Amino acid sequence: MNTIGKIFCFTGFGESHGTAVGGVIDGMPARVRIDLGAVQRELDRRRPGQSAVTTARKESDTVEVLSGLMDGVTTGCPIGFIIRNSDQHSGDYDHLRDAFRPSHADYTYTVKYGLRDHRGGGRSSARETATRVVAGAFARQALEQSGITIRAYTSQVGSIEVTEPYTSLDLSLVESNPVRCPDTKTAEEMERLILDVKHSGDTIGGVVTCVVKGVPVGLGDPVFGRLNARLAEAMMSINASKGFEYGMGFKGVELRGSEAIDCFVTDDDGHVHTVTNRSGGIQGGISNGEDIYFRVAFKPVATLIRDVPTIDSSGNPVVIKGKGRHDPCVVPRAVPVVEAMAAMVILDALLLNRAAKI
Amino acid sequence: MNTIGKIFCFTGFGESHGTAVGGVIDGMPARVRIDLGAVQRELDRRRPGQSAVTTARKESDTVEVLSGLMDGVTTGCPIGFIIRNSDQHSGDYDHLRDAFRPSHADYTYTVKYGLRDHRGGGRSSARETATRVVAGAFARQALEQSGITIRAYTSQVGSIEVTEPYTSLDLSLVESNPVRCPDTKTAEEMERLILDVKHSGDTIGGVVTCVVKGVPVGLGDPVFGRLNARLAEAMMSINASKGFEYGMGFKGVELRGSEAIDCFVTDDDGHVHTVTNRSGGIQGGISNGEDIYFRVAFKPVATLIRDVPTIDSSGNPVVIKGKGRHDPCVVPRAVPVVEAMAAMVILDALLLNRAAKI
Amino acid sequence: MNTIGKIFCFTGFGESHGTAVGGVIDGMPARVRIDLGAVQRELDRRRPGQSAVTTARKESDTVEVLSGLMDGVTTGCPIGFIIRNSDQHSGDYDHLRDAFRPSHADYTYTVKYGLRDHRGGGRSSARETATRVVAGAFARQALEQSGITIRAYTSQVGSIEVTEPYTSLDLSLVESNPVRCPDTKTAEEMERLILDVKHSGDTIGGVVTCVVKGVPVGLGDPVFGRLNARLAEAMMSINASKGFEYGMGFKGVELRGSEAIDCFVTDDDGHVHTVTNRSGGIQGGISNGEDIYFRVAFKPVATLIRDVPTIDSSGNPVVIKGKGRHDPCVVPRAVPVVEAMAAMVILDALLLNRAAKI
Amino acid sequence: MNTIGKIFCFTGFGESHGTAVGGVIDGMPARVRIDLGAVQRELDRRRPGQSAVTTARKESDTVEVLSGLMDGVTTGCPIGFIIRNSDQHSGDYDHLRDAFRPSHADYTYTVKYGLRDHRGGGRSSARETATRVVAGAFARQALEQSGITIRAYTSQVGSIEVTEPYTSLDLSLVESNPVRCPDTKTAEEMERLILDVKHSGDTIGGVVTCVVKGVPVGLGDPVFGRLNARLAEAMMSINASKGFEYGMGFKGVELRGSEAIDCFVTDDDGHVHTVTNRSGGIQGGISNGEDIYFRVAFKPVATLIRDVPTIDSSGNPVVIKGKGRHDPCVVPRAVPVVEAMAAMVILDALLLNRAAKI
Repeated sequence: MNTIGKIFCFTGFGESHGTAVGGVIDGMPARVRIDLGAVQRELDRRRPGQSAVTTARKESDTVEVLSGLMDGVTTGCPIGFIIRNSDQHSGDYDHLRDAFRPSHADYTYTVKYGLRDHRGGGRSSARETATRVVAGAFARQALEQSGITIRAYTSQVGSIEVTEPYTSLDLSLVESNPVRCPDTKTAEEMERLILDVKHSGDTIGGVVTCVVKGVPVGLGDPVFGRLNARLAEAMMSINASKGFEYGMGFKGVELRGSEAIDCFVTDDDGHVHTVTNRSGGIQGGISNGEDIYFRVAFKPVATLIRDVPTIDSSGNPVVIKGKGRHDPCVVPRAVPVVEAMAAMVILDALLLNRAAKI
Repeated sequence: MNTIGKIFCFTGFGESHGTAVGGVIDGMPARVRIDLGAVQRELDRRRPGQSAVTTARKESDTVEVLSGLMDGVTTGCPIGFIIRNSDQHSGDYDHLRDAFRPSHADYTYTVKYGLRDHRGGGRSSARETATRVVAGAFARQALEQSGITIRAYTSQVGSIEVTEPYTSLDLSLVESNPVRCPDTKTAEEMERLILDVKHSGDTIGGVVTCVVKGVPVGLGDPVFGRLNARLAEAMMSINASKGFEYGMGFKGVELRGSEAIDCFVTDDDGHVHTVTNRSGGIQGGISNGEDIYFRVAFKPVATLIRDVPTIDSSGNPVVIKGKGRHDPCVVPRAVPVVEAMAAMVILDALLLNRAAKI
Repeated sequence: MNTIGKIFCFTGFGESHGTAVGGVIDGMPARVRIDLGAVQRELDRRRPGQSAVTTARKESDTVEVLSGLMDGVTTGCPIGFIIRNSDQHSGDYDHLRDAFRPSHADYTYTVKYGLRDHRGGGRSSARETATRVVAGAFARQALEQSGITIRAYTSQVGSIEVTEPYTSLDLSLVESNPVRCPDTKTAEEMERLILDVKHSGDTIGGVVTCVVKGVPVGLGDPVFGRLNARLAEAMMSINASKGFEYGMGFKGVELRGSEAIDCFVTDDDGHVHTVTNRSGGIQGGISNGEDIYFRVAFKPVATLIRDVPTIDSSGNPVVIKGKGRHDPCVVPRAVPVVEAMAAMVILDALLLNRAAKI
Repeated sequence: MNTIGKIFCFTGFGESHGTAVGGVIDGMPARVRIDLGAVQRELDRRRPGQSAVTTARKESDTVEVLSGLMDGVTTGCPIGFIIRNSDQHSGDYDHLRDAFRPSHADYTYTVKYGLRDHRGGGRSSARETATRVVAGAFARQALEQSGITIRAYTSQVGSIEVTEPYTSLDLSLVESNPVRCPDTKTAEEMERLILDVKHSGDTIGGVVTCVVKGVPVGLGDPVFGRLNARLAEAMMSINASKGFEYGMGFKGVELRGSEAIDCFVTDDDGHVHTVTNRSGGIQGGISNGEDIYFRVAFKPVATLIRDVPTIDSSGNPVVIKGKGRHDPCVVPRAVPVVEAMAAMVILDALLLNRAAKI
């Protein structure tokens, strides 16, 4: 279950404190010119130690592409890549070898597999999302050549929320601040909250909003391959995610149908559009050409810089000392991961859609 | 894309106004005694025309099982079944042949496939969910033999919400009222709202909450087979769903990590449990033995009993006359569909988990 | 495991003596005009009771299509269909309830599933291949619109073999005799052999050769989706098949490389071709535009009209009385099944190939 | 299409002359103790330059495992690995940049992908089979803990054939000679033939026979997951393979049914066995507990040490100079690849079979 996708497939591997993480991108269409610098830049956006609001761990996170490219162009053959783990303080985790950290995967992995890699969470660590970012960066470059762009941002931290819809924001400002919120005033409040939480040894959750523009009509397949179902699956596969909604989402349940429908109009150039976009760019599970937008909720992560009482694998009470270097809020670093997963889902749907008609 | 599952797989077929809907259940484990009466009863819970809060369409919805059983026991071979479509007023839909209903799949199907079945929405109609209920009923009977039970209910209609958590409710009351809400006082309010909305020719959305009890530790697979990702995918494949959250969900983003963790304790009988269950029974994508609970948002459906302006396939403005027999609120009938999808996901995960260790 | 294919997927169900066999064709491209008469004619070619060389069982085998078509054209939605089992002498099989027929699936199914449907072999009966023929007939009609044709024939029965290559035969003669061999003189010998074998209560094996013409360059995917691997898998999934070879096949192992290569030439119209075609139309797992041809070996089936000693499920010796109505040689009826499987594999590869380039 | 398997899945990547080949083993059961020395030894059996009958290329082929192990035991998490390409004489291939070598994948890749990696065949090179051997070695160690062993050998080179069945051979002698034939007298003849062929700048084909012992009853799934279909698919995915047969195979078509059946008997210890094993250990697509045996045909490879006339990508005639270092007969080095593919298929079937019953 370390593969996602149907035609464009990504398979990842690697633990937090092993030799390397990496993956294989299969089904990458041939003849896409790849800018490896841009791939690395995506990875840098996810990297720990970027700013005061993220973990202080220093990882260089340099991607090494091993196959599938010739003269800078994809060949249609699988793209294998690795990212060496550079900052492996495995000894930091000896105190966890036998303890189950609350709200982590320690207990479930141990029961499922009969053993677990206790070093930094092993495979359950968000470390593996670095490989998703690489795969997503490849997908993205293919999409950009088809005029499809993906942009995510932090829309909520704790109870501090961007109140305006994405259509009123200047999304080019996302990278202008460490929390990755294009509403710069709200971004400052979010940053202050995260630093406060950090200083108290605690963590805080938040929401990432993602917008996909330029999607042609027709992506997504009835009935189990609905584009929204694929996006939900992909987003809920990201560590710490607790919820997904698209278009009007949970708030839409309070509307009347007459308030919720998106009326069609024909442009002067004959293109069909909808006047509003409460559907979120997807109708009947298939893209309708409008912007696709969705939101992903991330919980406050469970790794605290405090002593936490729990039990060990024999069921005896133990206390885990709060130490290590962790993110007070994962949301800013989740932004590029959300974008990467969206890119993979959209490219896969684009390729699949070519089989819809004879 | 009409198949869901990895080992326990369901493939559905059929349109709203074709000859029949049906499906194939593959990977059903052998030696499960099947109560076909119970399968039919699940189907009856989804059937139109049950009460004043649902569509007045009368469909008998009788399942005919064609294979995979011998002497009332599953043989391990695929279970084929059909449900004849009995109430086919195809003529009712002639006025829609060339019009794109707003916020339906008419436009997206037409562009994707180059044509569409305009009769009652064709494949995009919720009619196909009848087949999911059948498949889910088979999965459910296998799960019950393993001590796993699934129970969903209507927790919100419009802005009328059940404020108590599921743990304070008597879930045996779900079927005691037509809206399928175990909080009978709130149920009455919901019913009144739905009838009001119905009389105004409008529709209203709502939320289904689902609880799975008795799940062993270990179901779900890192990293792309997380149980929550599978549940999200399954729920977002249901017509009209707009959002999914589990455990603390979207509200959890406002908590501090120290408020959000579930502390472990050991029972007197040596079993590991958590004191709270904000995780929703899933940690690191794997079940931890606590109750799994999640919520699914359903929009107000777009079929109104009002005249609606839209365009036809040539882009010209037309008005769709409000007629037909439709649900003012799909949520009560979505309850058995949510349960069915949950049953399929959980059984699939249960079977997959057997491969975790040598 | 009752599904085959990646984009064009077929899922079958049904046992020999259940209510019906049937299936779902998913991923059928939209806008293919379907001649249901031609589908039924394919089914008639597989039907028992066609001639003296096949089983005397009379089965009408009428396909009922339940979804996925509108006005005779595919809609892109799944095509569900059933074939009612008309000649169910289940009582004929009571003597087999507890006996393991040699070289049948009785023993393996019983151990695998803990029980088995003993009536006519249940799911292990070749009865299910009727559903493959239906799915293949749909695939075929899509392929024909792309100029791809598939033709199989009986090339060997016992040790009577067509010695000429397919290129020297008039394949339009395949249906001119009951053994489906286009070499009419050899066909007569084969027919005599089958009748002799039949009268002695015995059975005989044979070989089906299949030729696919008009395949564009590029179908098949490295490395595990090689077109030859897909064809092998599909052919080896047919009951009683024991071997598969393509191009020069097993005989090619005796050649020198210098004798075995296919030299390229350019046609006057600039098309690339090979002078010879020992590769069998596939190079590196990908079609090269030449004819694809392959051979499938079928064993003599194990159902004899003789008393056969064996054991029962308690391990005690029993004798199975030779009775029932069975094929003395399955090869003539396997011809349409081989064609059907080839059609599904080729169409799937055709659709997949659209994703090769951006 | 660079993934094979359903639960135990292998995804490979890498070209002949890229940086590295490698792969990801997903679904490896947890708690298997891995002997990495044994993995490397399998790889050494496939390595070029082992003897005078193989290519003179020197490749160290050292596997580096990057994840999925802790303290020498599998964790249930994916196993990523790479093998650096050490002997990259890419310049050797400049003369092929624009030429289509006959009976290679040059032409088909170029048309399919719109470009190709001409260096040593790129992805179509048998170089990638090194990664299969690694994955197979992991599968093998899991199987050995379940008492299942796999042994392949060279049974034919050109027209020199081992005439005795595998049951009369001492399979422990396979590694005693460079052709990997346990019949040492025949092995000498094979070796002489290969050297003769090599000196004439030509190549020769052959057959690998593979035997799997200790398989429990029940592996394989009706109808499209038949164990023989899975084996056929896996074997036909190996470069240069042209045919597959199991049990009595193609020769069985000449038998009468009464000569071909395998009668059941009960052992003194109550175990069911068959007196003969013409079925090849698989009945109805499911293992019956007897030895599984099958044969794979390999063509003489098309890379000759001779001048070969062909065309270039513009369709003009060119001559390819015979140079480079190639195998005169791939069969001895194919032996470990066949074993590896068999190991993966059998382990996958073993894990899947756990889901057969409730």
